[in-house]
Amino acid sequence: MKFIKSLFILTIAGIMTVDAQQKSLTLDDLIPGGKTYNQFQPERIKSPAFWADRFVFRQGDSIMSRNAAGSLIKQPVITLGKLNEALQADQKKTLKGLPAFTFSTDSKKPYAVFYNDNFILTYDFATNKIVKAIPYAQGDTAFDFNPDDTFVAVNNGNKLFIIDSEGKRTEVSTDDPGDIVWGQSVHRNEFGINKGTYWSPKGNLLAFYRMDETMVRDYPLVNVGARQGEVVNTKYPMAGMTSHEVTVGVFDPATGKTVYLQTEGPKDHYLTNIAWTPDQSRILLAELNREQNHMDLNVYDVKTGKKLKTLFSESSDKYVEPENPAMFIPGNDDRFVWMSEKDGYKHLYLYDMEGNQIRQLTSGEWVVKDIVRIDKKGEYIYYLSNETSPIEQHLYKVSVKDGKRTKLTAEPGVHYPRLNASATTFVDQYSAIDVPSKAVLVNTSNGKTNTLLESANPYQEYAMPEISVGTIKAADGVSDLYYRLTTPVDFDPNKKYPVIVYLYNGPHSQMITNSWQAAIRGWDIYMAQKGYVMFTIDGRGTDFRGRDFEQAIHKQVGVEEGKDQMKGIEFLKTLPYVDADRIGIHGWSYGGFMTTNMLLTYPETFKVGVAGGPVMDWKLYEVMYGERYMGNPETNPEGYETSCMLDKAQNLQGRLLLIHGDMDPVVVMQHSLNFLRKSVEVGVYPDFFVYPGHEHNVRGNDRVHLHEKITRYFDDYLK
Amino acid sequence: MKFIKSLFILTIAGIMTVDAQQKSLTLDDLIPGGKTYNQFQPERIKSPAFWADRFVFRQGDSIMSRNAAGSLIKQPVITLGKLNEALQADQKKTLKGLPAFTFSTDSKKPYAVFYNDNFILTYDFATNKIVKAIPYAQGDTAFDFNPDDTFVAVNNGNKLFIIDSEGKRTEVSTDDPGDIVWGQSVHRNEFGINKGTYWSPKGNLLAFYRMDETMVRDYPLVNVGARQGEVVNTKYPMAGMTSHEVTVGVFDPATGKTVYLQTEGPKDHYLTNIAWTPDQSRILLAELNREQNHMDLNVYDVKTGKKLKTLFSESSDKYVEPENPAMFIPGNDDRFVWMSEKDGYKHLYLYDMEGNQIRQLTSGEWVVKDIVRIDKKGEYIYYLSNETSPIEQHLYKVSVKDGKRTKLTAEPGVHYPRLNASATTFVDQYSAIDVPSKAVLVNTSNGKTNTLLESANPYQEYAMPEISVGTIKAADGVSDLYYRLTTPVDFDPNKKYPVIVYLYNGPHSQMITNSWQAAIRGWDIYMAQKGYVMFTIDGRGTDFRGRDFEQAIHKQVGVEEGKDQMKGIEFLKTLPYVDADRIGIHGWSYGGFMTTNMLLTYPETFKVGVAGGPVMDWKLYEVMYGERYMGNPETNPEGYETSCMLDKAQNLQGRLLLIHGDMDPVVVMQHSLNFLRKSVEVGVYPDFFVYPGHEHNVRGNDRVHLHEKITRYFDDYLK
Repeated sequence: MKFIKSLFILTIAGIMTVDAQQKSLTLDDLIPGGKTYNQFQPERIKSPAFWADRFVFRQGDSIMSRNAAGSLIKQPVITLGKLNEALQADQKKTLKGLPAFTFSTDSKKPYAVFYNDNFILTYDFATNKIVKAIPYAQGDTAFDFNPDDTFVAVNNGNKLFIIDSEGKRTEVSTDDPGDIVWGQSVHRNEFGINKGTYWSPKGNLLAFYRMDETMVRDYPLVNVGARQGEVVNTKYPMAGMTSHEVTVGVFDPATGKTVYLQTEGPKDHYLTNIAWTPDQSRILLAELNREQNHMDLNVYDVKTGKKLKTLFSESSDKYVEPENPAMFIPGNDDRFVWMSEKDGYKHLYLYDMEGNQIRQLTSGEWVVKDIVRIDKKGEYIYYLSNETSPIEQHLYKVSVKDGKRTKLTAEPGVHYPRLNASATTFVDQYSAIDVPSKAVLVNTSNGKTNTLLESANPYQEYAMPEISVGTIKAADGVSDLYYRLTTPVDFDPNKKYPVIVYLYNGPHSQMITNSWQAAIRGWDIYMAQKGYVMFTIDGRGTDFRGRDFEQAIHKQVGVEEGKDQMKGIEFLKTLPYVDADRIGIHGWSYGGFMTTNMLLTYPETFKVGVAGGPVMDWKLYEVMYGERYMGNPETNPEGYETSCMLDKAQNLQGRLLLIHGDMDPVVVMQHSLNFLRKSVEVGVYPDFFVYPGHEHNVRGNDRVHLHEKITRYFDDYLK
Repeated sequence: MKFIKSLFILTIAGIMTVDAQQKSLTLDDLIPGGKTYNQFQPERIKSPAFWADRFVFRQGDSIMSRNAAGSLIKQPVITLGKLNEALQADQKKTLKGLPAFTFSTDSKKPYAVFYNDNFILTYDFATNKIVKAIPYAQGDTAFDFNPDDTFVAVNNGNKLFIIDSEGKRTEVSTDDPGDIVWGQSVHRNEFGINKGTYWSPKGNLLAFYRMDETMVRDYPLVNVGARQGEVVNTKYPMAGMTSHEVTVGVFDPATGKTVYLQTEGPKDHYLTNIAWTPDQSRILLAELNREQNHMDLNVYDVKTGKKLKTLFSESSDKYVEPENPAMFIPGNDDRFVWMSEKDGYKHLYLYDMEGNQIRQLTSGEWVVKDIVRIDKKGEYIYYLSNETSPIEQHLYKVSVKDGKRTKLTAEPGVHYPRLNASATTFVDQYSAIDVPSKAVLVNTSNGKTNTLLESANPYQEYAMPEISVGTIKAADGVSDLYYRLTTPVDFDPNKKYPVIVYLYNGPHSQMITNSWQAAIRGWDIYMAQKGYVMFTIDGRGTDFRGRDFEQAIHKQVGVEEGKDQMKGIEFLKTLPYVDADRIGIHGWSYGGFMTTNMLLTYPETFKVGVAGGPVMDWKLYEVMYGERYMGNPETNPEGYETSCMLDKAQNLQGRLLLIHGDMDPVVVMQHSLNFLRKSVEVGVYPDFFVYPGHEHNVRGNDRVHLHEKITRYFDDYLK
């Protein structure tokens, strides 16, 4: 792969009149939650979906559709008026606006399913009738339908229920509620887990997670919004401490019985990536040890719960991180696709049920980001990858038979394609640095493309900063790192400007992409208006650049990516307009950790920092994520010490503002408070602010206040 | 009373050489907890006490004594060496330094009692023998001996025990422990209550408090010093909410039985000021309703627990606040002294047991601060008052027979006299604005005085600011208010200086007294060194100025005393060297409330404020103190609204730093956090800092950090 030094430069200012350039954006315009924020979001198709192969979308109070060629069909699919007639006829509560629909994948079933007044309603929009009404209970969440819609699994509190088509409700959970959680996501949503129920292909069996947290310590959050402050406990297993215990059960609605998979090994292991075989006789589980350096892909017999065999294993001296369940080639009980980083990049592999690797389907110094679909015939795997550029995302298909791959999205940028039921067309909403948003309908066979929507630049009347993207070499001398550089509005190359580095640099992140304005944050634009140079770089440790690039941070977070950030500083110092004496830094979460880390490791470089929701001591972070990157505090004491900001507090020279939400259940406020305690002890003077009632991120309109607060801090001490 | 405008001016600088004046004091020198703080404290007599009539005190590893004339007796009373010999002989653990002793009041008993290695030891220093060793249990606290030392009552956790001379331990408490507290102080130490056990005069009966807190809500403090943050609950009844229920029991060690006083009325009333009659047949209780506007002084029969009668009542349209138990004239079951503010100033009254007022013993526009002693013959009451000046404290005696009173302390200042057993002499340690500390032995009959110790000025080598005390008129146009004004070191009358008001201004406080340097705080000196004018004024609401002066704040805290503080500002603005555009304000607790209140009520006046442990919403403060001054939130909604800083948050114009200890059990951190929440909502920008692990005050060496933090804030925004 080749990278040129400066890849893109976005100079929107050039296309505007002098008058228009006078207009400035407010934080309310620029920050999510701001009063006028939505006015500045590029227009997008609303509620895009497919009913079988027909593209449908919302337009006002109607659901409209387009034919395969992309032409609008004048007759609405659904209107609010008609829907309310149907609801009234069925003696159901009417609606003031269209609900969120799930459309049938069967063109013979003109059905849209939605939730209304504690009923799951199936609306036949051809006959304008409610054809099914399944009642559900107050507090039911996470509705998970089986493939033929004869059952829906629901969570209620910690319990798990299924409801059949007649509305009959059966409890799957058997233990007393409390600290045992049934049918919900486990392992804190790591390993790609985002739900807790998995219907069998035929829909008559329900695999589910059961998580016992009785042995996990509570972290006590305090809700001061109550008349008198009250504790809200959250189960929080900290690195090295006792973790929860997960099991997988299979419930049979016909018998009312549950068979548990008889997994082996220490109970704090990880049971991930549940997958049914098409004949639903077996379940595959990717099992990891607590150390996360060894994975077995095991097969279980559904009837007995007995382990049949280990298909294969993956080990690492760092970690393995399976995030994608096995996907079987439709109609074939013996072939599945597996995603693995074992060759250094996440790619697709074809395996059989003896655990033999049939072939590697993709390879190269790029990554498969996700599988979108395997077509019904089992011929093609549709997937997203960044093969064309590390900062882009395109849709490809690869032939299962011969590994031949075809790129399906044409224009540069970050694409979000949505396939129809038969994979003959897809709707692609994408953006690029100079493309606010564009939606096209594409024929997967011939590539024929129809433009559905092309958004205007929402900032066209405003004076905008110049945004450029480029690469520099990482501290390893080899890797290319992507940066985004934003120069002040009304830039004068003869002036010296203060600069603020915004960073995250943690795993599973990518701040710079070839999407609209290079994924710049509104606050960067705001600060560029105020005369700051804004800079962000994705150092090693970040996503989509391959295994070794990410794992460079292993067991010593903050060190290597800190060196990469300093490469960014070196680059900034080569820019004649950057004032090296006025360098600030800001980040949140891992970025808050990095902000503090940079300020304390390179105190001569950074004058001002604002660290939001920062990890200050990895011992206080949770087991799943924390131990993957840092190991156990007992076996990696040096790494925990090096990465502990408390141990570096005495290095503080500049101004450092810590910000925390007092209800943060992710990075608990203990991190910031312990850093303050240590700062008091060693006689340094950080600043602190709390957003009461907020969790790990300050959301809603308060986010505008947050950014004004951050801005003032830099204005006070850096400007 | 007459006040002159400027009462005192302390100009220590004048007595020093030019060279010496160059030296500056650090925060470590000036702040309690600072590394060198103790070096700057005026020398005082260590562990002063009387063994019967003989004055004893510690000198190194010896207890020395003086005769009645004040001459040092060469032979030590106790030496560590001898004591350890006695301990060794008794096979007890030896000591590395002298313990704290309680000396016998009987000259025939050369006994000193102390605690060592879970024994209460009685040391006969004449024979050099341990003559009694009573074992106690781990966790025993609050040792309360009966008058003849045959029993000691102790707390252990929530339980109450008595231990007899043989070491036999009997539990008085009977309920399961948990939220029922036995034998401890109740009503959050209001009404002068500071303990929970009250031995009868003959020592064979124990009256005690039992406090049921099961119905009181917990406030959850979070200890982040633990490996994983953990809740430390504290029972905290907030204004208007359910309060605890107190009863008084009388335990008879001879029978092991407890009789409870059969008090009447709502269970959340206040049972205060327990007093035994000399014949120990009856107990007097001052009982207040929850509203605290009515008090009955009731008499109970000890044998039956039945109420015999109400001796008299005191009512108020504001509040009554008895803080001193009835004191019987020795040997007379029918005459007791009662302290009351009913004539507008706290004075002494003689009552009989029918409830008749025999006579008012003291009167005038000054207050009796405390009764020190009634002599054994019942002739004189020794008491402290501020008759000579509101800002002084002197010892007087008043004749019970005719009310004639005699002043016993001569020099101006604040006196802390300690009487000997027969009230023939007292040792008085006192200070005044220009007297660091002086100790004298005084003969109560003839006033003959011997100086025991005269401390040097600990600051004599340092350049000190000028400190002056004066009065101005309050906003009521009538009351005189005392202020303390400190001008910068190296003062130049032609310059303009920033000024910082330090204030408290809550009930039961007095910031300005005629004690050493007018009770200036070390931080004031520090800031005066840095070029700030420092100013403090005791507005209405503060102590020792009479009932109406204090009660001016009733049901609308912040309003009247706020006006008084503005009178102080008016005065400051008359000073040519004060820069009216640079006025800051700082206070803690009630002073933190007032700081915020002044900044938000008079935003045009105050540019910078630092509010520590501030009450922000009186609904969140506790029942006992809060409802006395503010009534119930339901019956005084206007007052609670006026005094609620949240409702004024939008007025914030200047810079306001809030500081809180996260373990504060007095003004819980909910106050500051709720103010932040409201500030975010209305779009204002206070600052915030937390001292983790600290309670209502930041103590120990961290207090130096605190004051550096506060200093930097004023330096950043006011200087």
